[in-house]
Amino acid sequence: MRLARPLQLLIDQLQKLPSIGPKTAQRLALHILRLPREEARHLARAIVEVQEKVFPCSICGNLTDQDPCWICSNPGRAGDSLCIVEEASDIMSIERTGYNGKYYVLNRSFKLMDDIDPAEMDVESLSKILEQGQVQEVILALNPTIDGEVIARFLAAVINRHEVKVTRLAYGLPIGGDIEFADEITLRRALEGRKEF
Amino acid sequence: MRLARPLQLLIDQLQKLPSIGPKTAQRLALHILRLPREEARHLARAIVEVQEKVFPCSICGNLTDQDPCWICSNPGRAGDSLCIVEEASDIMSIERTGYNGKYYVLNRSFKLMDDIDPAEMDVESLSKILEQGQVQEVILALNPTIDGEVIARFLAAVINRHEVKVTRLAYGLPIGGDIEFADEITLRRALEGRKEF
Repeated sequence: MRLARPLQLLIDQLQKLPSIGPKTAQRLALHILRLPREEARHLARAIVEVQEKVFPCSICGNLTDQDPCWICSNPGRAGDSLCIVEEASDIMSIERTGYNGKYYVLNRSFKLMDDIDPAEMDVESLSKILEQGQVQEVILALNPTIDGEVIARFLAAVINRHEVKVTRLAYGLPIGGDIEFADEITLRRALEGRKEF
Repeated sequence: MRLARPLQLLIDQLQKLPSIGPKTAQRLALHILRLPREEARHLARAIVEVQEKVFPCSICGNLTDQDPCWICSNPGRAGDSLCIVEEASDIMSIERTGYNGKYYVLNRSFKLMDDIDPAEMDVESLSKILEQGQVQEVILALNPTIDGEVIARFLAAVINRHEVKVTRLAYGLPIGGDIEFADEITLRRALEGRKEF
């Protein structure tokens, strides 16, 4: 089957995106072809502009279009707690919990999608923040993986040089989950972390 | 949760596309943000160019970037059978079956996504093709819906003015389906259309 070349090109481009298979790419391409011209241009422009205008905040590493970002420049945010996350996108998830402190993103170079190597982490700017003395507690919100564990230990050593409490997110059963289907490591962690009822 | 505005704009645009929910839109937007700049520009350009360069073939209505399209201009395609489809995108599906004849798309204005009103169908250009006398059989490949049925009857009346055989796709059980789950209308059609074994 031959397709009009520009249509095939668009399908090829869409198929490179995550979670877009060949059928979805074809459906999306045909949908885009049928969009009002102005709409299609909006979409194309949004793709170009997100790259041109979004960058990591120079203080925390959050994705922003103004420096410092809206969290760092918001006086209403509690400056005594600093939540360390791997990726800027993790901030979106933690914001939904109602957390009102500040953040520190480890993987500032958001062009990299791979794991973080502790040796390549920008610990200096983190130390600088801690030296200011405002932060009372650092919350390690790293992924519950081996990598996350390695990074957490490395960071704890760095943070312990300052007079700051270090905590990390609790491990345990996910809400709505089923003990029957919980893996043994999660279950062991849930048991270890059991609380008085 | 506030997001960098260009990021939010891109998420909003992506979410308007079919089968893209809020979570997928966010994941796609973050992926696009991390793409090499050249890749993002390719995607944006493909979106704009598909609209600028793809149009319906003046003979059959297929989506093409050259007129007539590669099917109409291919001397290897059998000119004695003409397959009528509702949308140009239906051609992609029928091509996969190995069909080697020509096509005629009813809904040439591919900006319209809604149903076709027989009264608004461009029957004149279809009549012109049939008057040339090359077509021996018209295959109605309309959707197996009430609308498809209405259009099929309307078209059959038009085509019957010419000395041309009219056929339509068989109705019956989909391959790989299960009789238990077949709806009663499909099953009745399958029974009516039963063949000697």
